[in-house]
Amino acid sequence: MDKIKRNERLGALTKLLINTPNRIHTLNEFCALFGAAKSTVSEDIDLVSQSFARFDLGVIETVAGAAGGVRYRAIPSREKTRRVLDELAVRLSEPGRMLPGGFLYTSDITSESATAQAMGEILAARYYDRKPHFVLTMETKGIPIALMTARMLDVPLVIARRDSRAYEGSAVKINYVSGGERIETMALARRAVASGQRALIIDDFMKGGGTLQGMVDLMEEFSAEVVGVGVMIATARPERKRVDGANALLILEGFEPDTGRAIIHPAEEYL
Amino acid sequence: MDKIKRNERLGALTKLLINTPNRIHTLNEFCALFGAAKSTVSEDIDLVSQSFARFDLGVIETVAGAAGGVRYRAIPSREKTRRVLDELAVRLSEPGRMLPGGFLYTSDITSESATAQAMGEILAARYYDRKPHFVLTMETKGIPIALMTARMLDVPLVIARRDSRAYEGSAVKINYVSGGERIETMALARRAVASGQRALIIDDFMKGGGTLQGMVDLMEEFSAEVVGVGVMIATARPERKRVDGANALLILEGFEPDTGRAIIHPAEEYL
Repeated sequence: MDKIKRNERLGALTKLLINTPNRIHTLNEFCALFGAAKSTVSEDIDLVSQSFARFDLGVIETVAGAAGGVRYRAIPSREKTRRVLDELAVRLSEPGRMLPGGFLYTSDITSESATAQAMGEILAARYYDRKPHFVLTMETKGIPIALMTARMLDVPLVIARRDSRAYEGSAVKINYVSGGERIETMALARRAVASGQRALIIDDFMKGGGTLQGMVDLMEEFSAEVVGVGVMIATARPERKRVDGANALLILEGFEPDTGRAIIHPAEEYL
Repeated sequence: MDKIKRNERLGALTKLLINTPNRIHTLNEFCALFGAAKSTVSEDIDLVSQSFARFDLGVIETVAGAAGGVRYRAIPSREKTRRVLDELAVRLSEPGRMLPGGFLYTSDITSESATAQAMGEILAARYYDRKPHFVLTMETKGIPIALMTARMLDVPLVIARRDSRAYEGSAVKINYVSGGERIETMALARRAVASGQRALIIDDFMKGGGTLQGMVDLMEEFSAEVVGVGVMIATARPERKRVDGANALLILEGFEPDTGRAIIHPAEEYL
């Protein structure tokens, strides 16, 4: 194999790190791939790391110790987070998004991969230190955001269903209170979660918090520990939610009576 | 601003291209960001492009013309595609995946972000030239793969629902035949698709093809054109599917009677 110059290594190195967010790569892995010395690969990594820091593209960090190496985390700066949430609030307050019953039409935005990824980056950044083993969501609208959060954390996504389908095998079912009144069912394949695992719960929308509390109850059935609850949008009212300690990125205050536009803004901690 | 050296540009340039697959960036965009001449940025792009080609990391290509520039497409080589599908077939034939009724348990694999991304890369590569405006899937299990396919194509994802929910506004509903016998309902928000758009249909599993044909019928209601139908796994039987021209990545032949292991392999065109 020809000797590979630094200029030719940097693109590949960047791609390999970004492709697997939060996964630790050993220097040896890159030494073998590029036929380069450790000190050389180390300098390459410093260059990519500086480049990312300069342009607010996330963090390349070296992890010390026996299981050490280098990893990429898509941690957005405070300014970038604010910019992303502001832009989203503007889009969500476009006219025509108010639906009968005071609901907000968000399906076009929640299933955009770029938006889901941006949300996933912000949510993951908040929960790295809780070390979840998996992300849990309830079908359907939260799946893209939950998947991207799981991707950024390098953990599996687990999807609770409205009913237990034949192709999921034996399942645990619970009842929960949705929309303040209706009793609904949520099911999860028995093999999806192991006892003692740490769950991060992610969903797109929280009004009363009943669905999220249902997911908390479901995790209790599996003897799993809930280490965080994150949602894209929470309504300002009711102030008291069925679930405790959920973190929202955006707060929906209500709708302008004349225009029907949503009044929505980033949550206080992001202001 | 200090002058930014090539070594410091390459990491950022790579990240910005990969972050937005299939999106065309103008050279001017990078010239402004890096304070560099067009010829310099052009050389940078060539370096990243060579690095990607050498390590089978996808394609960085220059697009000529008035709307021209440079874009990243995650096109895996034939060898890489084969390797990904072989590994997946091995995992799917692990013991214990056969469920009552001859179903295959795949939820753990279909909702892994890395697997969904690998599937999305292979599926997108097949449909770039059909220029879909959006990817359509039916909730729930196909969503991660469909989302990643949409991400690679840089188009929105549209999710058909089992029922029309209050928070989606007015919807189009159709009936379709699932599992060869049952009549089921599929719904999609009226505002989700515009007349004349091109749809790429993606799902995780095809047995009879009824659900996929339902999505084709649904697109007819919206006067949208279906430019492709792609699935992760198709069963070998029934040979005749309700939907025409679907492309599968993997073929499920059946299950070993003694062990219950799935007999599954890459589709012929990938062998």
